[in-house]
Amino acid sequence: MEQLTELSYALDTFYFLICGAFVMWMAAGFSMLEAGLVRAKNTTEILTKNVALFAIACTMYMLCGYNIMYPAEAVNSIWPGISFLIEGDHSVADVLASKGDTYYSSMADFFFQVVFVATAMSIVSGAVAERMKLWAFLVFSVVMTGFIYPVQGYWKWGAGFLDQLGFLDFAGSGVVHLCGATAALAGVMLLGARKGKYGANGEIYPIPGCNMPLATLGMFILWMGWFGFNGGSQLAIHGIENANAVALIFVNTNAAAAAGVISALLTAHLLFGKADLSMSLNGALAGLVAITAEPLTPTPLLAAIIGAIAGVIVVFSIIGFDKLKIDDPVGALSVHGVVGIWGLLAVCLSNDDSTLTAQLIGIVTIFAFVFISSFIAWYVIKVVMGIRVTEEEEYQGVDFSECGMEAYPEFTNSGSGK
Amino acid sequence: MEQLTELSYALDTFYFLICGAFVMWMAAGFSMLEAGLVRAKNTTEILTKNVALFAIACTMYMLCGYNIMYPAEAVNSIWPGISFLIEGDHSVADVLASKGDTYYSSMADFFFQVVFVATAMSIVSGAVAERMKLWAFLVFSVVMTGFIYPVQGYWKWGAGFLDQLGFLDFAGSGVVHLCGATAALAGVMLLGARKGKYGANGEIYPIPGCNMPLATLGMFILWMGWFGFNGGSQLAIHGIENANAVALIFVNTNAAAAAGVISALLTAHLLFGKADLSMSLNGALAGLVAITAEPLTPTPLLAAIIGAIAGVIVVFSIIGFDKLKIDDPVGALSVHGVVGIWGLLAVCLSNDDSTLTAQLIGIVTIFAFVFISSFIAWYVIKVVMGIRVTEEEEYQGVDFSECGMEAYPEFTNSGSGK
Amino acid sequence: MEQLTELSYALDTFYFLICGAFVMWMAAGFSMLEAGLVRAKNTTEILTKNVALFAIACTMYMLCGYNIMYPAEAVNSIWPGISFLIEGDHSVADVLASKGDTYYSSMADFFFQVVFVATAMSIVSGAVAERMKLWAFLVFSVVMTGFIYPVQGYWKWGAGFLDQLGFLDFAGSGVVHLCGATAALAGVMLLGARKGKYGANGEIYPIPGCNMPLATLGMFILWMGWFGFNGGSQLAIHGIENANAVALIFVNTNAAAAAGVISALLTAHLLFGKADLSMSLNGALAGLVAITAEPLTPTPLLAAIIGAIAGVIVVFSIIGFDKLKIDDPVGALSVHGVVGIWGLLAVCLSNDDSTLTAQLIGIVTIFAFVFISSFIAWYVIKVVMGIRVTEEEEYQGVDFSECGMEAYPEFTNSGSGK
Repeated sequence: MEQLTELSYALDTFYFLICGAFVMWMAAGFSMLEAGLVRAKNTTEILTKNVALFAIACTMYMLCGYNIMYPAEAVNSIWPGISFLIEGDHSVADVLASKGDTYYSSMADFFFQVVFVATAMSIVSGAVAERMKLWAFLVFSVVMTGFIYPVQGYWKWGAGFLDQLGFLDFAGSGVVHLCGATAALAGVMLLGARKGKYGANGEIYPIPGCNMPLATLGMFILWMGWFGFNGGSQLAIHGIENANAVALIFVNTNAAAAAGVISALLTAHLLFGKADLSMSLNGALAGLVAITAEPLTPTPLLAAIIGAIAGVIVVFSIIGFDKLKIDDPVGALSVHGVVGIWGLLAVCLSNDDSTLTAQLIGIVTIFAFVFISSFIAWYVIKVVMGIRVTEEEEYQGVDFSECGMEAYPEFTNSGSGK
Repeated sequence: MEQLTELSYALDTFYFLICGAFVMWMAAGFSMLEAGLVRAKNTTEILTKNVALFAIACTMYMLCGYNIMYPAEAVNSIWPGISFLIEGDHSVADVLASKGDTYYSSMADFFFQVVFVATAMSIVSGAVAERMKLWAFLVFSVVMTGFIYPVQGYWKWGAGFLDQLGFLDFAGSGVVHLCGATAALAGVMLLGARKGKYGANGEIYPIPGCNMPLATLGMFILWMGWFGFNGGSQLAIHGIENANAVALIFVNTNAAAAAGVISALLTAHLLFGKADLSMSLNGALAGLVAITAEPLTPTPLLAAIIGAIAGVIVVFSIIGFDKLKIDDPVGALSVHGVVGIWGLLAVCLSNDDSTLTAQLIGIVTIFAFVFISSFIAWYVIKVVMGIRVTEEEEYQGVDFSECGMEAYPEFTNSGSGK
Repeated sequence: MEQLTELSYALDTFYFLICGAFVMWMAAGFSMLEAGLVRAKNTTEILTKNVALFAIACTMYMLCGYNIMYPAEAVNSIWPGISFLIEGDHSVADVLASKGDTYYSSMADFFFQVVFVATAMSIVSGAVAERMKLWAFLVFSVVMTGFIYPVQGYWKWGAGFLDQLGFLDFAGSGVVHLCGATAALAGVMLLGARKGKYGANGEIYPIPGCNMPLATLGMFILWMGWFGFNGGSQLAIHGIENANAVALIFVNTNAAAAAGVISALLTAHLLFGKADLSMSLNGALAGLVAITAEPLTPTPLLAAIIGAIAGVIVVFSIIGFDKLKIDDPVGALSVHGVVGIWGLLAVCLSNDDSTLTAQLIGIVTIFAFVFISSFIAWYVIKVVMGIRVTEEEEYQGVDFSECGMEAYPEFTNSGSGK
């Protein structure tokens, strides 16, 4: 019997670690996606940002974020409090005495959580690409991953007031994706559009990404990583019911992404008359974001419908932001923000425990808190050190001014992409 | 005891899901391989095809393919019949009552199967690259993944007549790889060669791929994914015998791929005097395809020999197709078709249950059924909407006409590769 | 009870296989990293080397390396002896009779080990890039993976004299990384620097890599793969203690890599005034190499400190090798060699069983043995077939002379990068 408990603990821990490794892999996905969608002259900088933000997220979340989000003793359901650094893991005796309540390593839980916070932060880097100062971005990432993300994460996943209100967000359409997109929106609004993106008379000039295979690779990496993201959020695989749940989550996640591709491809075809690759990629990601709030209760067919609607939404949202002159080079605001909201609302289509009220309160709370706190953080950074590169640096490409290194020194013709 | 059954069910389900995620990852592998081996001007289109076909395969297989391939009540061993949509998963009571017969989630099985059908379809996209209309291809992928693949899959894996005849195909050298290559062959024959590939007097002009690191990455992704492809096809890992089987499959899969690289590299060196990277990549894939029909009964040394022979075959096969003026930009017909046949025959080298007769019947059946049904499908599509882009569009690159987007807008010199 | 043993065996075997697949994936990481950091004209060749060395490593280790490293009957603790080819796997009866001593498939163990040896060999290819003859390199890889690596591996992991002395190296900062770097150093010294790297008056000319997104992708692949590399080296996950250990290893591995990025980024910023992407990538890898010798006993905070120090070391080491005119295009000597030594010494910071003496003996032994044996091997190869391409070939790029194929035929302007 004790050996069975031990084995079950090992299986759940292993499942958690593998799912976490898949989520960590998403850092590569965001890096490739964003590097593919910017111009060659800004590629080294976006890569550096992505590598550094992942490192900062892992470090800040270890130093304080995890304890804010999952405090041993919270002050109250709004204010978490930090009461300990990462403790040692469960002792064998404690696990055996818990009668199954303690069924996986707390370190494995930390590992899974730490790669989630990096995902949230990765969303930001794409939206502010091609004109933000690198160090300003990294300072913001310290604030975001150490404080902003953990506080709203506590409200839901740390058993804070949003959780008590009945707000449902299985794997983070809100806590991760809407949170990241909202922080990005605050940054984009303070930052302004890229030079040459919008004309004086309302013209919108497309700025094509320099490397579409890289962007496609990034999408596939994210799709793969999402199996860990959603599948691991069941938090256990021992027993028939958990195993069935994880399997259904994998199927639904895949079905939503697939349907998102098809609907975005068709929508873009109807609008533009072409098979638009970048919209297809965003359609896949939209399907994934939409199903993240509730990947367990829908049937696969409903999951596909939720994903298909997300694929339509994302196309119109990207067009809409451009009309509003809110410049988002990779479409992150649409994919993670607008579709994140759709995902949170779609919970009500299949989960009987959900209420539209609670979902709306959750959406408004996350949006308001993250927007205001991020705006303040971005604003302070802007005043203290500036957030935007000079016009000359932007023209020349931020790779030169920020990193001193070209991404493709032998490929680009002088003057190209400028 | 019941807890042990529950835990075993969880482990098998988890194993299935992770193997499935590895196979899904192969979609990225095919995308990168094919994007690396075409010219820059046709890259966006091949990427779009690969993303869309994966989405279509997942959706069509959910809507009807899975139920054709694994019908609850088949009409007979040749005609499957569709008798249900995806059912709910096994109940706890049913699993416990089954005394071990039901040992993993049916959703996990569906997930594993659905990524297989996408693999078969991915094989086609490479062979028809650089001149086929995108939407014609996608229409074919609906037919292929919803009907053609599932029917012949039913004959073997759904316990149809090929299975009853004793035809052996462990993980799909025939059902997946030969099937995909045969559908591709039918398409290529109706489509014709790329302009400029073959001269009037029998000259063969090489058309080099534009991005060899991408092609190499694709090969490595496929190699990695193949551990899930073959390893998951044991269908269970619980118990010592299953675990040993899966471990041996991993070792044999790796040994065959490694030997395929070495033999293809040496063969190409003897023929051309150079260390040919693209032949090395095809050698690895050939080794993988060859061992797929029977990765369990050979010793690792025999697996290496099977892979080494595959590496030689693939080089001569690629040369041979070129002599026949059958234009296959990525070598898919050779890697998956010719070597798939070799793999099916090689089953007889180690599996005492195999007969050469049954293997030959299986090969002929799959080839004939898939070729004829694909040819009809391609032909109808050709008549209705056309399958080939215009000469002008081909010259300009299909990216422009089909997708309206360049893959590398800043890298290619105007006129290059045309 | 027997069923529990069977299930435990299956879980450990599965864990081993998945960790092994992650390590295999590192082959793609090295390929992409190195392909990104060399010039376009030498890219096909470095890719070919990486694909071929992986294949050779897997084949040679199967044919003789594994049995040298883990002999059934060693001659003595210095001289291993080869006593068998790969045996069949454990029988069910033997496993059950072993009372838990035999807890995973021996084939799974072989699979895990075989991908390790490929890692060691991958380290070499980067350091000798852009001027070494391809076939000379492949001949060396036969010697390295079949003999040199296994012999020193036997001394530690095969229970040879270094193990008996108390030398500690959990996952291979010494046995894998220092070993690979030392073999590379011997090769680099016989090979000499690339033309144009060092001026007559002590000038050092930077030779930028041609594809930084590829290099970044390579780093992320390696980071992901390292979870298998270190996590699998616990060799078991059954039971609470093992599961906790593996979880802690994942967390520490991640923390060290993250800290390495941050410290290398800051160090480079202080030295050069820029956010240096390539130093950030090397910082991540340095953190990973440093924690590899002991990822289990440090707390996550100590792991981060060990990684942070590694990130500083690697920057100064790369600068130092350049001052010594030891030309290492990708920084492999610093990342794997110098930092490998740091990792072996850092074991003493947290593991009470370690002694500085034993660690120093281990370092000196591995370095001396691998350097001398590699130097002899390289020297013989140099005399017999030559190891360096001609000056003309180097100027033109080794892709042309060695592989007859350009990596990016449409992207590079004639004359660029030469």
